Amino acid sequence: MDKARNRLRAALVSVGDELLSGRTVDTNGAWLGRELARLGVPVARRYTVGDAAAEIQEAVAGAAACAELVIVTGGLGPTPDDVTRDAVAALTARPLREDAEVLARIQELFRERGGSGMAAPNRRVAQVPDGATKLANERGTAPGLAMEHGASVVVLLPGVPREMRGIFRGPLTALLEARFEGRLRPVHVRLLHTTGIPESRLAEEVARCLPDGTGPVDMAFLPDLRGVDLRLSASDMTGEEADRRFEAIEKALQGVLEPWRYDAPGGDLAEAVSTALRASQATLAVAESCTGGLIGKRLTDLPGASDVFPGGVIAYSNDVKVRVLGVAGDVLAAEGAVAGPVAARMAREAARRCGAEAGIGVTGVAGPGGGSAVKPVGTVWYAAFLRGRVATRAAWFAGDREAIREQAAQAALFLLLRLLDGRETPDP
Amino acid sequence: MDKARNRLRAALVSVGDELLSGRTVDTNGAWLGRELARLGVPVARRYTVGDAAAEIQEAVAGAAACAELVIVTGGLGPTPDDVTRDAVAALTARPLREDAEVLARIQELFRERGGSGMAAPNRRVAQVPDGATKLANERGTAPGLAMEHGASVVVLLPGVPREMRGIFRGPLTALLEARFEGRLRPVHVRLLHTTGIPESRLAEEVARCLPDGTGPVDMAFLPDLRGVDLRLSASDMTGEEADRRFEAIEKALQGVLEPWRYDAPGGDLAEAVSTALRASQATLAVAESCTGGLIGKRLTDLPGASDVFPGGVIAYSNDVKVRVLGVAGDVLAAEGAVAGPVAARMAREAARRCGAEAGIGVTGVAGPGGGSAVKPVGTVWYAAFLRGRVATRAAWFAGDREAIREQAAQAALFLLLRLLDGRETPDP
Repeated sequence: MDKARNRLRAALVSVGDELLSGRTVDTNGAWLGRELARLGVPVARRYTVGDAAAEIQEAVAGAAACAELVIVTGGLGPTPDDVTRDAVAALTARPLREDAEVLARIQELFRERGGSGMAAPNRRVAQVPDGATKLANERGTAPGLAMEHGASVVVLLPGVPREMRGIFRGPLTALLEARFEGRLRPVHVRLLHTTGIPESRLAEEVARCLPDGTGPVDMAFLPDLRGVDLRLSASDMTGEEADRRFEAIEKALQGVLEPWRYDAPGGDLAEAVSTALRASQATLAVAESCTGGLIGKRLTDLPGASDVFPGGVIAYSNDVKVRVLGVAGDVLAAEGAVAGPVAARMAREAARRCGAEAGIGVTGVAGPGGGSAVKPVGTVWYAAFLRGRVATRAAWFAGDREAIREQAAQAALFLLLRLLDGRETPDP
Repeated sequence: MDKARNRLRAALVSVGDELLSGRTVDTNGAWLGRELARLGVPVARRYTVGDAAAEIQEAVAGAAACAELVIVTGGLGPTPDDVTRDAVAALTARPLREDAEVLARIQELFRERGGSGMAAPNRRVAQVPDGATKLANERGTAPGLAMEHGASVVVLLPGVPREMRGIFRGPLTALLEARFEGRLRPVHVRLLHTTGIPESRLAEEVARCLPDGTGPVDMAFLPDLRGVDLRLSASDMTGEEADRRFEAIEKALQGVLEPWRYDAPGGDLAEAVSTALRASQATLAVAESCTGGLIGKRLTDLPGASDVFPGGVIAYSNDVKVRVLGVAGDVLAAEGAVAGPVAARMAREAARRCGAEAGIGVTGVAGPGGGSAVKPVGTVWYAAFLRGRVATRAAWFAGDREAIREQAAQAALFLLLRLLDGRETPDP
């Protein structure tokens, strides 16, 4: 508690039965986490409670005991299950009074919208706890409310994301900058993206390279099906110092990360591949069997994809591999569809038929059926073609159908990226 | 507290610095909220805390004080910031012991994957608190762990959603059914899937058809980019009674829902289309421009896709539309790429070239660039081909690039579904 008080921290309270029942995913918490970190007030804890006054009061009291800034979202609307305003007014012993200014604004809003004017329940929204600061809501009726409670500031915001965000970015940020002047500690962050190396092995190798740890820099491993991100973060220092420390850590890890690393501002390897294609003035065509369109989908998720991606063929069946891509029927008959020569031919033919400099071919057993003793579920052959030369690889990926497909797409994109930047050698 | 004890309730603890900092949105909480409601244990409260033992212990203690079931997700991995297992073992005064069975399974997993075998940090994952029940994890290394703590059961699950879900659906559900036998108050749920009608209009029409409401049945509208699900739910009654009430509501809504409705056990329209294709012994080929592989990806997300989906062409550029699909260059020149005849020709040629009975063609302006006064961002032409006949439609979709692509894929799949079941008429 005392230790917590030394550092400026925030605690969040999300209010709503629909959040507990899972009907709504709480995106406000994550958004506020990011914005508050940027502002310099890390979130220490988050509570999610239902539309019940006692639950809200218990959470707000707990939050105020561990953080100087408490932000409550949701439950400020006009319906009977909106009880946040009353609950917090009671907790902080502030009588509610109808605010003439807020009421006038709501009435005006309803007049502008036409129709039968303001429905009676909306009057509740104009209630303001005694001594609270109103935070103007340009996008809705309920204003935000900020009030002192013990040593903390308690802020109430609407649960509707766009209203909440508007108030946060506008009047609330100004209020926090004034209230916590000189104490905001912005967090500096750098992400290092890897793919193809399991989290546990990466952690082990990183620990080996940094036997003395990372000093004031925090390091976290963020794994998903596509790879592991290494997140470096630091506060209590200038941006220049953070950059200097991040670079020292990157340098220490260079050898370990090099075979697995890619750079992409948005985090997606497809973005790194698109950037590398632009840099080498190449376009890319895909031939996808087990990934079934996933690679094309990812490349075209990015705006401006047409610069580098003309398209390709989804060759899910052998028949389409032969008819549309021109893979030789006798190769398929001799080797089966999941084989190196098939993947190589797919990559080469995709490029040729779509008039592209580069090509990707992927063929594998995504399961759950279709596996055999020789080619079990998870067996994938993939190839990257670039200006006449092709690199072919095999892998065995663990996991279910989704995991295998995601890893296959990622491996094929990464092979092409490394072919483009000269880190990977084509087949002899 | 006493009141809380009367009803069986759950409290959730989500662990992870990345959840507080907003790097990751916590989808586990919402998922568990839905699944637990279905099982008959409503969630009363959720805590989100960082990777710190004291925080985890405080939250677990608070959760156990208000709920008989506590589920903790996250922090069971091999890296040093995974501290959940140790924190809860200390809180419940259960010494940790290396479990030979878990260790053997992890070692076997790593052997199967090949490479240099298990990295040392993974050994931590084999630590089991004394007397805890292990919950097998088919999709990863860390097993779930369940242990009694006071009057509550505390369950630890991995934070990786797919691992968490697998354990929940399998061994954990069995454990909860045994532990809380006779006290579960299952919620009966029926989902009615719609696509193409906005939530506000659907809500209005539904209200008109059910002027007296839905009695003891709860109704919720669940919108996402692909459509709106209508969720009917009821508890405190038998499954038979719930079914009877759901059917009465469905019957009342039949006329309103018919133009927009599809059935799919997994909720995905691609599943409904695959089922309809199987029923009419047809296969489907796609020609995707603005969706860039998204439709193929969705069709092949489903196991057994090869029965109905041979593949198709990602014709993102005009050049590929001409070279690979054989769309006439003069049609493109006269009409532009986003036009009815182009979509129709794409659907027809995809089917012909891939030897399929059915075809889908989609071409549109997904943005953010590429719009014009005549064809603004969001303009999409799409067509469905079936056994010689084609239906062509245009739409203007609102939203960002992702929203437009998702709606375009959905509209094209829905058009084919309705062509297959005779609800839609081909072009004259």
